[in-house]
Amino acid sequence: MSVAPPLPQFDDVLDAAARIAPHARVTPVLRATALDTLAGCRLAFKAECLQRGHAFKFRGACNAVFSLPDGDAARGVVTHSSGNHGGALALSARLRGIPCHVVVPEGAVGAKLGRIAAQGAVLHRCAATIEAREAMCARVQAATDASLVHPYADPQVIAGQGTAVLELLHAAPDLDVVVVPVGGGGLASGSAIALAGLSSGVELVLAEPAGAADTLASLQRGERCTSVTPDTLCDGLRTLVGEPNFRILQAHRAQVLAVEDADTIAAMRRLLVELKLLVEPSSAIALAAVLANPARFAGRRVGIVLTGGNVDPDRLPWVSA
Amino acid sequence: MSVAPPLPQFDDVLDAAARIAPHARVTPVLRATALDTLAGCRLAFKAECLQRGHAFKFRGACNAVFSLPDGDAARGVVTHSSGNHGGALALSARLRGIPCHVVVPEGAVGAKLGRIAAQGAVLHRCAATIEAREAMCARVQAATDASLVHPYADPQVIAGQGTAVLELLHAAPDLDVVVVPVGGGGLASGSAIALAGLSSGVELVLAEPAGAADTLASLQRGERCTSVTPDTLCDGLRTLVGEPNFRILQAHRAQVLAVEDADTIAAMRRLLVELKLLVEPSSAIALAAVLANPARFAGRRVGIVLTGGNVDPDRLPWVSA
Repeated sequence: MSVAPPLPQFDDVLDAAARIAPHARVTPVLRATALDTLAGCRLAFKAECLQRGHAFKFRGACNAVFSLPDGDAARGVVTHSSGNHGGALALSARLRGIPCHVVVPEGAVGAKLGRIAAQGAVLHRCAATIEAREAMCARVQAATDASLVHPYADPQVIAGQGTAVLELLHAAPDLDVVVVPVGGGGLASGSAIALAGLSSGVELVLAEPAGAADTLASLQRGERCTSVTPDTLCDGLRTLVGEPNFRILQAHRAQVLAVEDADTIAAMRRLLVELKLLVEPSSAIALAAVLANPARFAGRRVGIVLTGGNVDPDRLPWVSA
Repeated sequence: MSVAPPLPQFDDVLDAAARIAPHARVTPVLRATALDTLAGCRLAFKAECLQRGHAFKFRGACNAVFSLPDGDAARGVVTHSSGNHGGALALSARLRGIPCHVVVPEGAVGAKLGRIAAQGAVLHRCAATIEAREAMCARVQAATDASLVHPYADPQVIAGQGTAVLELLHAAPDLDVVVVPVGGGGLASGSAIALAGLSSGVELVLAEPAGAADTLASLQRGERCTSVTPDTLCDGLRTLVGEPNFRILQAHRAQVLAVEDADTIAAMRRLLVELKLLVEPSSAIALAAVLANPARFAGRRVGIVLTGGNVDPDRLPWVSA
């Protein structure tokens, strides 16, 4: 049985910030008066859809890849993800000049696979189940001795994701609360560590699809709930919260708001109209959580991480087919 | 006969920058590696679609409104524009707490008029001809003694628009060339003054719809051409270049590239996919000019002003109806 790696600490987030600085973008923090009026609070949006690869995932992947010792790095990295993490790891590996293997399940979107392959990564196809993905990942690891970079449970990934909130607080130091989406929990747990480490007193609120609210259930019960079957348009948030991610969120008393997909779609459209930014449903959910709970945020200064923008502009969910 | 006001100078642009600083946003300068690869040059995008009112027009309107002496200001301002300038002037007047009158032609888009009215401006409707607009404007002026703030020929408007390029060069000091759209020429002439004043050696290239290329014709002939009938999707660029604007552009030897609407639509979609920004066709034309003329820009460092983002996300021009 493998021993769980230690949970990342605030120093790891600070180290990550220094490590990724030569590679990652410092994304802008944007405001929109019309959205403030609508929400009844003051909003600051950290636009990670403008990060390299169009998602915050580059932060964690880049930190993991560049924290590997040279010898390990030379043997490459491997992950299973057909989404933004796969693309982010492929880009990070290319920047370090090392091999990257990405295990992708049947049925993954061709355009996303094309982007991963375009970064020079080797794709390994498998069946769509989590068991098949993990088995294929283990097989690639055995054959190549590549280092596994888990999409959200890896400590260096968690530390890297925490750097987004560091930058947000630097640009908007007077926030009362920060809202981020939660899926596997890499960003959520990294944000919790960053906020606690800044001794900021800033509250952390997580936005989770009502149809995939396992983090909410887990925190309510005090143990990780693995029986949820995700049913949500938010394709980036269908993952169950990871084990270390859950422990970090529990320790930091993170609050979770469940959000209906219809509210998320409406928020996605509002972000395009009022902030001129195209974001994924999995990002828009954070604004949806604020708009659906006006009393909770009234008059407060609210930071929101817009996590990614990888969405097909020809199939916007509010345009009827 | 009225005497033409003196042309604005670089000092006027610097004054404008200081004057609008408490009110305008310093918009971010964004980059997208995929667009660099596509264009074969290094692009820096000044995202004025994230300016207040979602267009650079706020710079000029704000500068004009806040440079009025108190006595004049108290009698209000008037303009004729159903587009971004009308909204920008209404917002600026509200910020100074003075009346604003906007003459709007029949057939103007209801949503845009709603935005202008929402800022507290008084709308004055008239027929769609330029003669009717100017006559109504003169009537409002006579009745109210409000100060006319012309959308692009006003010297304070020109100076205000020049501040966008000041900020662009501050954020990206190593540019070789700056590309901006040209319609009435407020931004174009302000940019010319700013670039010359910075002694930057940065070339100015203007992007103009092939179906409304009066600036190109005017600069080629050496006199202002007023016989062009605009036929373009770029609703912000259907205006003939203004008289002072033409003189400034002629003096600064601005270059003009004519761009087909089909190329502009393709560039607008690319900006949404690769930069995650929703911009108007009248903004996307600048990138289209670069992509349509690869040899002209190959290997150079190119700044582009994305002028505005006021477009209906339910009617994106590449989505067939």
